[in-house]
Amino acid sequence: MPGYNHLFIPGPTNVPDSLRRAVDLPMEDMRAPDFPEFTLPLFEDLKKVFQTETGQVFLFPGSGTGGWEAAITNTLSPGDKVLASRFGQFSNLWVDLCQRHGLEVEAIDVPWGEGVPVTRYAEALAADTEHRIKAVLVCHNETATGVTSDVAAVRAALDSVGHPAMLYVDGVSSIASIDFRMDEWGVDVAVSGSQKGFMLPTGLAIVCVSQKALEARKSAKLNRCYFDFEDMIRTNASGYFPYTPATTLLRGLRASVDYLLGEGLDNVFARHHRMAEGVRQAVNAWGLKLCAATPHWYSDTVSAIYVPEGIDSAAVVRHAYYRYNLSLGAGLTKVAGKVFRIGHLGAINEVMVLSALAGTEMVLRDVGIPVEAGSGVAAAQEHFRATATGEQSIAAAAQ
Amino acid sequence: MPGYNHLFIPGPTNVPDSLRRAVDLPMEDMRAPDFPEFTLPLFEDLKKVFQTETGQVFLFPGSGTGGWEAAITNTLSPGDKVLASRFGQFSNLWVDLCQRHGLEVEAIDVPWGEGVPVTRYAEALAADTEHRIKAVLVCHNETATGVTSDVAAVRAALDSVGHPAMLYVDGVSSIASIDFRMDEWGVDVAVSGSQKGFMLPTGLAIVCVSQKALEARKSAKLNRCYFDFEDMIRTNASGYFPYTPATTLLRGLRASVDYLLGEGLDNVFARHHRMAEGVRQAVNAWGLKLCAATPHWYSDTVSAIYVPEGIDSAAVVRHAYYRYNLSLGAGLTKVAGKVFRIGHLGAINEVMVLSALAGTEMVLRDVGIPVEAGSGVAAAQEHFRATATGEQSIAAAAQ
Amino acid sequence: MPGYNHLFIPGPTNVPDSLRRAVDLPMEDMRAPDFPEFTLPLFEDLKKVFQTETGQVFLFPGSGTGGWEAAITNTLSPGDKVLASRFGQFSNLWVDLCQRHGLEVEAIDVPWGEGVPVTRYAEALAADTEHRIKAVLVCHNETATGVTSDVAAVRAALDSVGHPAMLYVDGVSSIASIDFRMDEWGVDVAVSGSQKGFMLPTGLAIVCVSQKALEARKSAKLNRCYFDFEDMIRTNASGYFPYTPATTLLRGLRASVDYLLGEGLDNVFARHHRMAEGVRQAVNAWGLKLCAATPHWYSDTVSAIYVPEGIDSAAVVRHAYYRYNLSLGAGLTKVAGKVFRIGHLGAINEVMVLSALAGTEMVLRDVGIPVEAGSGVAAAQEHFRATATGEQSIAAAAQ
Amino acid sequence: MPGYNHLFIPGPTNVPDSLRRAVDLPMEDMRAPDFPEFTLPLFEDLKKVFQTETGQVFLFPGSGTGGWEAAITNTLSPGDKVLASRFGQFSNLWVDLCQRHGLEVEAIDVPWGEGVPVTRYAEALAADTEHRIKAVLVCHNETATGVTSDVAAVRAALDSVGHPAMLYVDGVSSIASIDFRMDEWGVDVAVSGSQKGFMLPTGLAIVCVSQKALEARKSAKLNRCYFDFEDMIRTNASGYFPYTPATTLLRGLRASVDYLLGEGLDNVFARHHRMAEGVRQAVNAWGLKLCAATPHWYSDTVSAIYVPEGIDSAAVVRHAYYRYNLSLGAGLTKVAGKVFRIGHLGAINEVMVLSALAGTEMVLRDVGIPVEAGSGVAAAQEHFRATATGEQSIAAAAQ
Repeated sequence: MPGYNHLFIPGPTNVPDSLRRAVDLPMEDMRAPDFPEFTLPLFEDLKKVFQTETGQVFLFPGSGTGGWEAAITNTLSPGDKVLASRFGQFSNLWVDLCQRHGLEVEAIDVPWGEGVPVTRYAEALAADTEHRIKAVLVCHNETATGVTSDVAAVRAALDSVGHPAMLYVDGVSSIASIDFRMDEWGVDVAVSGSQKGFMLPTGLAIVCVSQKALEARKSAKLNRCYFDFEDMIRTNASGYFPYTPATTLLRGLRASVDYLLGEGLDNVFARHHRMAEGVRQAVNAWGLKLCAATPHWYSDTVSAIYVPEGIDSAAVVRHAYYRYNLSLGAGLTKVAGKVFRIGHLGAINEVMVLSALAGTEMVLRDVGIPVEAGSGVAAAQEHFRATATGEQSIAAAAQ
Repeated sequence: MPGYNHLFIPGPTNVPDSLRRAVDLPMEDMRAPDFPEFTLPLFEDLKKVFQTETGQVFLFPGSGTGGWEAAITNTLSPGDKVLASRFGQFSNLWVDLCQRHGLEVEAIDVPWGEGVPVTRYAEALAADTEHRIKAVLVCHNETATGVTSDVAAVRAALDSVGHPAMLYVDGVSSIASIDFRMDEWGVDVAVSGSQKGFMLPTGLAIVCVSQKALEARKSAKLNRCYFDFEDMIRTNASGYFPYTPATTLLRGLRASVDYLLGEGLDNVFARHHRMAEGVRQAVNAWGLKLCAATPHWYSDTVSAIYVPEGIDSAAVVRHAYYRYNLSLGAGLTKVAGKVFRIGHLGAINEVMVLSALAGTEMVLRDVGIPVEAGSGVAAAQEHFRATATGEQSIAAAAQ
Repeated sequence: MPGYNHLFIPGPTNVPDSLRRAVDLPMEDMRAPDFPEFTLPLFEDLKKVFQTETGQVFLFPGSGTGGWEAAITNTLSPGDKVLASRFGQFSNLWVDLCQRHGLEVEAIDVPWGEGVPVTRYAEALAADTEHRIKAVLVCHNETATGVTSDVAAVRAALDSVGHPAMLYVDGVSSIASIDFRMDEWGVDVAVSGSQKGFMLPTGLAIVCVSQKALEARKSAKLNRCYFDFEDMIRTNASGYFPYTPATTLLRGLRASVDYLLGEGLDNVFARHHRMAEGVRQAVNAWGLKLCAATPHWYSDTVSAIYVPEGIDSAAVVRHAYYRYNLSLGAGLTKVAGKVFRIGHLGAINEVMVLSALAGTEMVLRDVGIPVEAGSGVAAAQEHFRATATGEQSIAAAAQ
Repeated sequence: MPGYNHLFIPGPTNVPDSLRRAVDLPMEDMRAPDFPEFTLPLFEDLKKVFQTETGQVFLFPGSGTGGWEAAITNTLSPGDKVLASRFGQFSNLWVDLCQRHGLEVEAIDVPWGEGVPVTRYAEALAADTEHRIKAVLVCHNETATGVTSDVAAVRAALDSVGHPAMLYVDGVSSIASIDFRMDEWGVDVAVSGSQKGFMLPTGLAIVCVSQKALEARKSAKLNRCYFDFEDMIRTNASGYFPYTPATTLLRGLRASVDYLLGEGLDNVFARHHRMAEGVRQAVNAWGLKLCAATPHWYSDTVSAIYVPEGIDSAAVVRHAYYRYNLSLGAGLTKVAGKVFRIGHLGAINEVMVLSALAGTEMVLRDVGIPVEAGSGVAAAQEHFRATATGEQSIAAAAQ
């Protein structure tokens, strides 16, 4: 099909050209004597993206799911109790992963469209006077529903009752896009991947671990080898890896971190918020409803949008792909057929968002949803115009 | 600036990813014994793009301007008379080139916004009973104004008076995008370049020459060496070149020709027309006016759009670039400050066009032109929806 | 440092340009409706590389170590007994991985330089009349020592006593380079990775599993989730994956399989043997000794070469890298400082091998090892000349 | 054919990976408001490569031949007298180009294997008391024969008789590889191309012009348009071009200049000399003879090597290509069948040179030339070892 594919799924995201070239490399010797000159500063700078000074970052060839597994198996023992909540495909899967590894999960089910139930977490923690709960899980951004949870509030809940459980965050679709503060929020294990906010091809699980969680590994009895922190700690110390690392992605990660720190994390977060708000203005103009129940839960990286009764959202996604070369996210499991998703994270700008909206409008009308042509685009345009930052002003353009 | 640049100038065009990779090659020996196995079929297949069976294609490292020079210097002699017309930057420049090479140009000036004045050509040819006119120049698509001329009508004018002059066509921004028929229209020299309809980086002048024009080279006395057909004919015959060719672009051209013939030339032309019509619907919805005077002149590869009095179109272009990472074409020379241009040629699809329109709308409103937000996008959307072809239908999507 | 790096480690290997371009792609939607049109034939064709008709191939974002883990955790239960042997870094690590996952490993230690001790395996199997041994491990090609073991002989040992244990093969540095016959040899689980014979960047664990081993997963009780076959089987059936796959590597794998099947597996194996023999001729000419104890153990993908007493092989590798931009493999653990390694696998040809040898000769002389300048190169040259195949003959060249 | 092609022709040269990526770009708007921020410093820095402070550099989409044409047509008038010499394919072609453009060329024929005959130039200039000679042509490095001429000596010859003729240098295969001093040697026009010492794909003619030659353009009457300096001067002044430039190559040129200045021009020249000397040591060890008549003429970028009587050098080149994937340069015109050529310029290092020599040795033996296996490689190795620079020392490696 002529022209490029318009990719607006919630990851993998559009790889910026500079990062794409940074990955397009010949192979190199991962045991070269000067390899550490590359890796050691990379490990250091990655910590800035997690906003931590005391944590340690691990890089595994893998995906976010592998990151979850690394987080769990390195720090917990069979039968350990975990507090979690389920409100979407990915929060469900993480609970499932814990169970398969023999953990006892207290999983609070919450309606899809809401996020981590802080009050109920607080109650559960308060009730756990024996401190049987070893880990508290937070899916920072539930990709299936477009819901962002409040990690800081969970930390506050833990602190308010002086509970010593460790705090685990799935930040796969938030970190490097939505504000995430490892140290300030007292996060013990944060999991991300290369293909979302880091804007790289899939293939790296990126895990950041607090000193407390690192200490916990010493008594953690879950089986592990591939994802073992111990091997990584020993070899990373001198800039190497326990087995063959994905060098091209590591080089890309260097470029990614430079890209993120170059733009400035605060600017990155503000940009994501502004892009997301444009999408939400459009959804509102269309008269459609977000899966996220209230603005409290709105995600700045992905919006899940309900289609009216009688419409199959899967047909929306399929039609978008085949007729307009537009890739949207499908509804998953419980909301399959009910929502479609627009991913708006990574290297994204105003006109990219508008293209997603303009294409989606055609699709919605094609499948019989009565949205007004151009309405969503117009709403987003006005938002973008009203919030354009000074440095991109007409004055600057008038030079 | 995050996200990609939105490139909607009338060339260079967006290089499809498959072509980009086809160009991203190590160097190779252009004198390798099997090099002709690559080049000879390429020369043959290129003829299909020009819709010729009897012509011969030449490939020079250069640009379209070099192609013009090759066309002229290989077939004409100092003092030869040329019939031409001027109605934009590029038709002007070609006349200028002829004059610098010592030709006598009868240049008919036409208002910018119109194209080749066929009736006046016919009159001039009829008046030239001594057949002093050796060459008739047609700028098939004037990129500066978005005007397409009627090559077939010029051929008819020549034939109606039995004039033997050769017919030269500047097809830089038409060939491989707008229907062009070398043989049927009796074109003697057609000039194109790699960076427009061929969807490649700049760097190849592509010239197709009839047997009549090839014969003319034998008596043509204009100086030439770099662009000499003779050297090319001699070496191309065995699949080689007289000097180092741009092998990466040649390999890319192979992919380009496969791309074009794979889609089917008729489909390529129909797609360009449909995309262009979407842009024109938007311009109409904005209440703006095209530089092209009447639908007769509308170009399917580029639209030049007047801004209202009191607005500087250069500011539109500059603002689009700095604020929205959107590259539009500026107005050139006579229409500088008065028009901006949207290029809609090459590897382009509906959502790409909509992104150009959506971005442009923001810009127009930012600079104070009272277009309605979303109006142009909506008009184009409805056009695209109404004209979607069957094979991309919902039925197909419903599989 | 000017000029390219000469990479002759035993993986990652030199990525052929066509595969490099096949990997250099924009992101795509791994849930696109036509994604299975790509993945399903890929799964099928991969089986040809493993020479199996009945096995099933799994593709994990990961490395070979992850493939080992997948093999073990999906098919075995805590406390299961495994028969293995240790004769190098990688055979050691696999044993270690089994132990960490709670298996009881009967590990036979063999001098480094030899491979799987078939007779002792046969004895152990014969002695195991209760069939407590559930798995027999074979490191097909020990990368640390350049030793290839005889998988067929292990199969014969199993069969001779009618032992039902499953046969596991680490084929990371053999498959797609050295003859490997899944079905004929009755292999139950074979592990490989993208960065060796498949000639791609690191990042895919490639595991092929027999029906018997697939059946075994149903009672296997080791914890697993990321590397779970079950999730893969369920989603792969329709052409999808349980979590985000590394799409760029998958596309590259398509090109890799086409490359391998296009050359013909037998030709690939013969080429590797011929290249390896050239290296061995050179080592002999240098008067040095291979780590592989006898020709029986010679590896066709990597040669580990002893340096004389008093020389530090690590200095050889470091000097090669810094002075000549030549990457050789270092000696690992037990043979650290004693051997250096030349990788000769993947997309490799005669002149590439000669460049490795020519560079190595300089290094050896620089560090004071009395090899004759040009001697190894000459020996390899004569081997290559003598074994050049007919289709590349002077006659052909004389066309 | 597996493995990469070994490219040792005298251009195009091996593109370093960093430059290859620098060229692998999406298209961009060559009229963007910030384009001059890229181009203006590039023009400045290019002057450093030509070692000029007062000259001006022009960049044309084209090849070196186009650069010759630009040099001539911008500065001379029909019938102007030019002093030149012919001693190889390229020096011949430049004379031919001058003649085709209507110049009167006094061409001194010299045996192939020698270079510019300075004494005879001096005589001709002394005899030209009326200063009819307007231009003196020097082919700095004759690629066909591997001969480098003495530009400084020609300048001295001009100065010794106070002759005002302009000095033109074909530096296509010398500049950025062999010392070239525009200002110190009083060169008026120097011509190069992207695909040799600049290590980029073919496609840019790079021409550097003195103020004296720029002044000459005002009275130069040869026809020109595509290669006109005037249009370039006018548009380059503000950072733009008169027609679509090859933006990807311009971006690559930025990387190339950074590469060259980063290594340091003196180091670049020294490296080329050292590599070339390695090749010459090998030729000597083989008992073969260079086309270059005496060491005075030896080229540091290409060596043309005679094959013994009775051997067809074209068969050598063909055999190298088909059997060993090794691309050598063929003998051209007068020395066709008699010499083959090894290009050793651009991004080249010791092991690359050795690979060329090792491959060539096999070829020579295959075709029946009695060179000793390994002899040439050994000679070059010893040269490289003996001349290795301190900063690459074992001491450094021993860190």
